[in-house]
Amino acid sequence: MPNQLGGYTFGELELGQVFDFSKIISKEDVKKFAEASGDNNPIHLDEAYAATTQFKNCIVHGVLTAGLVSAAIGMNMPGPGSIYVGQNLQFRRPVKVGAKVDVHLEIKELNPDKKFVTIATTASVDGKTVLTGEALVMVPAE
Amino acid sequence: MPNQLGGYTFGELELGQVFDFSKIISKEDVKKFAEASGDNNPIHLDEAYAATTQFKNCIVHGVLTAGLVSAAIGMNMPGPGSIYVGQNLQFRRPVKVGAKVDVHLEIKELNPDKKFVTIATTASVDGKTVLTGEALVMVPAE
Repeated sequence: MPNQLGGYTFGELELGQVFDFSKIISKEDVKKFAEASGDNNPIHLDEAYAATTQFKNCIVHGVLTAGLVSAAIGMNMPGPGSIYVGQNLQFRRPVKVGAKVDVHLEIKELNPDKKFVTIATTASVDGKTVLTGEALVMVPAE
Repeated sequence: MPNQLGGYTFGELELGQVFDFSKIISKEDVKKFAEASGDNNPIHLDEAYAATTQFKNCIVHGVLTAGLVSAAIGMNMPGPGSIYVGQNLQFRRPVKVGAKVDVHLEIKELNPDKKFVTIATTASVDGKTVLTGEALVMVPAE
């Protein structure tokens, strides 16, 4: 039975449980993230500038890709009512603006005393890993 | 001398070097981040809903606060031309929508072989720490 806010309760989560979702990160998404965060670095926003760099194309802010991971945690597994305690991130490859990003979550550890869940968090584009990391989330008992 | 893209070169960075900046995270910023990331959890967006939770107020997505850290790294220290390799984040306290967030960066380690810099990354509101962590950044040699 979901908790009062619609997310999973601690007892409903299992080791190895997964959640997957995909989202195209559009030029408009990158522009909104730049405005929200204040990160207007031209590598993310200016195609003519990006063409002069090693990346050739505008690339997504790494923390916006992390935002997709956070969205999956906050909205789906464990979902509403859970509290994001920590996240580590390794940015493995640049993500081109316009790419479809596949997010994969997998429960790696359950701590019943603290009601903490450790989730392996991965993002990939065309089967290539762009982001790895682990999230630590506190989940409601009921 | 800055690198070709306007950021610091590796040799210009020193242990203990700091960078500080502040930004108010507005309701509009939170809405833009929700749209960009797909995280429409009502705790961030719906004041009536948030009033029924332990937080009482709408709170900023943790990863948006991390976006301010990322903005400071990408735009200021080390700035353009550096490559974000990794970031770990501990979310210490919720940040209310509308709060002024103070970001503090401090260089903790320099690895001349790899041209990697480790930066302690902190965010606080009214003097209380809301986010801690460390960034690993690769910086151009010239």
